[in-house]
Amino acid sequence: MNEPATPCLVIDAAVVRRNLKRYADYVAQHGLGLRPHTKTHKSVKLARMQLDAGAVGLTVAKAGEAQVMAEAGDDLLMAYPAVDRPRCDALAELAKKVTVRVAIDSQAAAEALADAATRAGSTIGILVDIDVGGGRTGVQTPKDALALAQFVDQQAGLRLDGIMCYPGQVRGEPAAQTPALKQVDATLAETIDLWRQHGLAALIVSGGSTPTAMQSHLVTNLTEIRPGTYVYNDMKIVTGGYCTLDDCAARFACTVVSDAVPDQVVIDAGAKTLTYDSFGSGETLSHGYLVEYPEARVTKLSEEHGQVDMTKCDPRPRVGERVTVIPAHICPCVNLQDQVWWKENGELEALRIDARGKLS
Amino acid sequence: MNEPATPCLVIDAAVVRRNLKRYADYVAQHGLGLRPHTKTHKSVKLARMQLDAGAVGLTVAKAGEAQVMAEAGDDLLMAYPAVDRPRCDALAELAKKVTVRVAIDSQAAAEALADAATRAGSTIGILVDIDVGGGRTGVQTPKDALALAQFVDQQAGLRLDGIMCYPGQVRGEPAAQTPALKQVDATLAETIDLWRQHGLAALIVSGGSTPTAMQSHLVTNLTEIRPGTYVYNDMKIVTGGYCTLDDCAARFACTVVSDAVPDQVVIDAGAKTLTYDSFGSGETLSHGYLVEYPEARVTKLSEEHGQVDMTKCDPRPRVGERVTVIPAHICPCVNLQDQVWWKENGELEALRIDARGKLS
Repeated sequence: MNEPATPCLVIDAAVVRRNLKRYADYVAQHGLGLRPHTKTHKSVKLARMQLDAGAVGLTVAKAGEAQVMAEAGDDLLMAYPAVDRPRCDALAELAKKVTVRVAIDSQAAAEALADAATRAGSTIGILVDIDVGGGRTGVQTPKDALALAQFVDQQAGLRLDGIMCYPGQVRGEPAAQTPALKQVDATLAETIDLWRQHGLAALIVSGGSTPTAMQSHLVTNLTEIRPGTYVYNDMKIVTGGYCTLDDCAARFACTVVSDAVPDQVVIDAGAKTLTYDSFGSGETLSHGYLVEYPEARVTKLSEEHGQVDMTKCDPRPRVGERVTVIPAHICPCVNLQDQVWWKENGELEALRIDARGKLS
Repeated sequence: MNEPATPCLVIDAAVVRRNLKRYADYVAQHGLGLRPHTKTHKSVKLARMQLDAGAVGLTVAKAGEAQVMAEAGDDLLMAYPAVDRPRCDALAELAKKVTVRVAIDSQAAAEALADAATRAGSTIGILVDIDVGGGRTGVQTPKDALALAQFVDQQAGLRLDGIMCYPGQVRGEPAAQTPALKQVDATLAETIDLWRQHGLAALIVSGGSTPTAMQSHLVTNLTEIRPGTYVYNDMKIVTGGYCTLDDCAARFACTVVSDAVPDQVVIDAGAKTLTYDSFGSGETLSHGYLVEYPEARVTKLSEEHGQVDMTKCDPRPRVGERVTVIPAHICPCVNLQDQVWWKENGELEALRIDARGKLS
């Protein structure tokens, strides 16, 4: 195999296919739709693989990502509120060609999207974003969800399609019915019931993230889930108990560039490669897992230096040696790369990160 | 002025010019050379401005950055150890056209660069990286520095040019002669003396970072400094006492996309825009400073959401409003952008981030 310059991200195709199958099997078993969040891979090729594996559509976070992912699929959900004119106009324009849905939590967003759709002569589907405990976005009560749904229902250019929630705070043992999960279930049920009483239907009820994905069948009303990370996995998913090291498809090849400081080596992957994200805490905190040196910890990052504590390692890597690093959180790492390497049958092929840096 | 899509980084040209002048004046006053670290802006245009303002050369962290910055200047220092073949070959090739120096801390690096230079038929200048207390890279003692210098001096294709240190841990009141700084001074003096006794000269003694730059005249033997952040500045530099808010040239324009959760708004800048870097700590920790709402704190980031605590703000921004955000650490933020906006005389012009994502 050729040896590309480091640091570089190598994606194991076989592991990706296995990850896709695991989630496809899960949703098939429970009659759920899978709408993968493409923020993780930002690649048209991967989005197509997800659709080929049975996904009902694609999720994006930004309008620029939606424009890229329209090359892969014709049913896009922007799980992110659009309120500013550039973003709304871009989505309304895109809605002339493909199904575009946006999750919102304010009348201001509904008005802005309605205006844009009217200007473009298109229709945008709306999911009402309801906060099920995470406290990030989303209307606060079923009653507020009804009020926003009624408002949306009256806007020209908009079509009320359902409800979105992000149950990221629901993390227990896989597949366990935790109190937090019961609360999500109850909130969604109450909202749907209230809508029904007022003649409104939630055809789509969208939930899920990778850590909570396998609990989705315990939420009665969900119609689809939106995991992203599952396609590659990372150390946060491993340490959360949601997958094994073998399920981590995306790994950095790095070079040891210094061992001058005692009990430490430096790898050529700092925060501009691994991001400042970490897993573990205190004595176990690390910014990456060194596959060949499991006892090593990436304890300190500067922009291009990764300082690796080697106290517990024997033998230790020499300067110039290549090491394999699984990052804490893969999604922002992929977003730092213009291209990664797709490894299939022992061959490396360049894979462009099509939606890299699409921030707006 | 046109209103570009958010989140976007807007660079105030007048502030940049003032920052450049301040540091040019400082080094002129003290007879030092300025070799700005281009990792901050990653832009050929900015590098040219720095050279026009009197810089003696440019600093880079990676070979890919060196290749880009060779468009701007013909004297490049890679303040980062090259030991792997792709990086060494790229630098040796570049050294056929421009002056290339590399700071290293191992014989392995010397051998790898010598091999590459011999293959390419070029000469690479070497600075011996000595650890002056930071514990990141660098040989540990003046004696080790001598041994590496002697080794370098015997390698075909290499030219021993001097010493590099990174005194990032030396942070006191600006211009104060702290104990840590005295230690840097002593270590460098001892090393230079030892080299001299063995017939070796350090024509270049390179130090400095933005926080420590204005203390550089207190280190007797420095010939040049390598600040990077000073061109734009950021909240870490402000809160460290090294500049004022007015000196922050690079600011994000963001949009408020949600206010559904009480006492909070969400801006469209998360970790994929601001990075996870922060300033302050505990009750004052924030991932960005909202210029229009100084009491606000960006307390939590997910990839595309910035959760802003508005408890202390009255009035508060409405959904759809634009706000200006100064990031904690500008360098990794710039590296997330394909282009930023250069604001001069009230006009915005696209500025490409030429060396974005050049990781190898």
